[in-house]
Amino acid sequence: MSSIPKIVILGAGYGGILTAQRLQKELNYNEADVTLVNRHDYHYITTHLHMPAAGTDTVEHARVPISKLIDEFKIDLVKSSVKEIRLQDRKIILEDGTLSYDYLIIGLGGEPETFGIPGMLDHAMTIRSINSVRMIREHIEYQFAMYKNDNKRNRIRFVVGGAGFSGVEFVAELADRIPQLCKEFDVNPKNVHIYNVEAAPSALPGFDPELVEHAMNVLKKKGVTFKIGVPIKQCLPDGVIVGEGEKLDAATVVWTGGIRGNALLEQAGLEVMRGRVKVDEFLRAPGHEHVYVIGDNSLVFNNEGRPYPPTAQIAMQQGVNCAKNVVAAIRKKQPQPFVFTSKGTVASLGKGEAIAVVGGKKYKGWKAAQLKKLVDLRYLFIIGGIPLVLKKGRFFG
Amino acid sequence: MSSIPKIVILGAGYGGILTAQRLQKELNYNEADVTLVNRHDYHYITTHLHMPAAGTDTVEHARVPISKLIDEFKIDLVKSSVKEIRLQDRKIILEDGTLSYDYLIIGLGGEPETFGIPGMLDHAMTIRSINSVRMIREHIEYQFAMYKNDNKRNRIRFVVGGAGFSGVEFVAELADRIPQLCKEFDVNPKNVHIYNVEAAPSALPGFDPELVEHAMNVLKKKGVTFKIGVPIKQCLPDGVIVGEGEKLDAATVVWTGGIRGNALLEQAGLEVMRGRVKVDEFLRAPGHEHVYVIGDNSLVFNNEGRPYPPTAQIAMQQGVNCAKNVVAAIRKKQPQPFVFTSKGTVASLGKGEAIAVVGGKKYKGWKAAQLKKLVDLRYLFIIGGIPLVLKKGRFFG
Repeated sequence: MSSIPKIVILGAGYGGILTAQRLQKELNYNEADVTLVNRHDYHYITTHLHMPAAGTDTVEHARVPISKLIDEFKIDLVKSSVKEIRLQDRKIILEDGTLSYDYLIIGLGGEPETFGIPGMLDHAMTIRSINSVRMIREHIEYQFAMYKNDNKRNRIRFVVGGAGFSGVEFVAELADRIPQLCKEFDVNPKNVHIYNVEAAPSALPGFDPELVEHAMNVLKKKGVTFKIGVPIKQCLPDGVIVGEGEKLDAATVVWTGGIRGNALLEQAGLEVMRGRVKVDEFLRAPGHEHVYVIGDNSLVFNNEGRPYPPTAQIAMQQGVNCAKNVVAAIRKKQPQPFVFTSKGTVASLGKGEAIAVVGGKKYKGWKAAQLKKLVDLRYLFIIGGIPLVLKKGRFFG
Repeated sequence: MSSIPKIVILGAGYGGILTAQRLQKELNYNEADVTLVNRHDYHYITTHLHMPAAGTDTVEHARVPISKLIDEFKIDLVKSSVKEIRLQDRKIILEDGTLSYDYLIIGLGGEPETFGIPGMLDHAMTIRSINSVRMIREHIEYQFAMYKNDNKRNRIRFVVGGAGFSGVEFVAELADRIPQLCKEFDVNPKNVHIYNVEAAPSALPGFDPELVEHAMNVLKKKGVTFKIGVPIKQCLPDGVIVGEGEKLDAATVVWTGGIRGNALLEQAGLEVMRGRVKVDEFLRAPGHEHVYVIGDNSLVFNNEGRPYPPTAQIAMQQGVNCAKNVVAAIRKKQPQPFVFTSKGTVASLGKGEAIAVVGGKKYKGWKAAQLKKLVDLRYLFIIGGIPLVLKKGRFFG
């Protein structure tokens, strides 16, 4: 190890940004070199992407320049893609260079988990980045434009695969967008069909059943057709095959059914389950005490031995804990075990509607929608303070 | 002929609308039944379509509900597509019904003339209706979105086939739109290429050479690459082959190279040249004294024996003349020969730029751009008076 330890953070998502910000705050002058590597020069707010994907909000409300979030005098920002993680050499191979590290924090984004459904990777779109959601939005608009020229019914039929949080939040925005699109393109709304297909026996698996029922009723009223307990067997360029062979026509298929870890971790020789590394209590990769894994790539179990789902909430808490533990390691202090504290769950159901469980209490309708907004604003406040809240916050509508 | 003659007008373009409006004004109560047939319930302003096609203006500035333009107490409006014109039976077969007539005015829109260039009909888009321009706009935006996901360079390369008025006006708007799209999708403008390809030895064939040069300089400065005197040999899904075999990569090809008459006229047994009927001096189809052909489907020759190009200007004048002649025929009066009077020519070159020849005088730059706006406003005034000018007129920008 050199006299000044080098810390490299891969990915400026929820986990990576929180780690970087906390390190920036905790570390003394010349105590360590910190480099944050990210493919884009902006951080995006994944929990907000369902809106620009449907076109109900602009992407600019869902991203922030990283330079506004970190102090570039204290942290070096490298805009590049990671090609390889060489644990033995303590080196990161970038698209256009290399970096060596003493401490590594892997906060890279996950990848879509399609469970081997044939055609899904080829023909479905996923909500996972600014670029991908702009594509979904444009794809949907293009289908409306094409429908007015070729009259093919699959142009205005939509399948959302997965009725977990991402699926339900997106399908709600899509249902809100359809009337606008119908007006803009002179399409009869009665001809538009939106299917939300979920293999599990319930939508929003694991969520309070009363709220799930409320959510489904809200979405049905917005025109969504649910296919629950119905697996997608195959994804085609013009639709999906579900259940016992029924074909749902749809030129637009959006897959929200799952996330797995980034392939780079397995390629680095780390032991993974669905691409994720089961980290130790200090968030370190087993056998690599200088390598921390947070966010979508880390696997943390609760007291009942079940893994926490990958959420923004857990990634943020991991970022804070990880920064503390790296600083402790540099100072040769004791690290702190990571303990996840749930602050509750909120799912938006489009304009003015949401469901939430916070502090053991259930919320729905307008109140839950306000809670959703509070969660969003709180996050903006955490990473960027009042100026960011004022700049990116959505207070109305 | 029944006691009250039935007049059927096919198409509510420039010619059809002007005919309908003049008939409505000229005819006395119960002198004739007039029916206007149109595929859409709106009239569109073809000379304005290059803007919504590029996305520099909304389609709403380019269309007007037909019900605002005609008096539905005096004229019946039938929203339907014409499937067949049966001249012997004096019947029109519509998609969903039939109409019989005593006098027929064929003002249907033309079709793209691709001169048999292989692949052009399949892979190129054309600027010819509200539906087609919405598709072009969405196609372009979709390519930008896709480029950010697959990085294929043809996504942000554009070929406009034809550098006549339509081609040049569209290419200018496209060049104006590119910087906005680059900003919205985080694309480096340097990577975008726009080609305007013309087989003839000059852009804007037949126009004043000094103004043509000015136009080309304006467009080159906006980033357009001209290929003049270079024929397109083939159109592919991902570009065009030009000249001696050079491939121009482009996921977007817009063909503006020509218009031919509507295929329904030839199918009706009328003698046509490039789908157009060489009408007599009263705008009637030869051998069918109750059938008038105006606009894109009519062929009228000037004193030098050369056909007038199909323009909004000639279609409007034909509409006025045609209405007079139909009224004269009903009243057993002498018809008036059609004489085209050129009011000049204006071509817009995007924001703040245009070229014009009016009354033998040349104009360019800001002055010509104002002339272009005046022409647009004058048309709105002719068909809809002050209220339409205020509602649809573009006075600024």
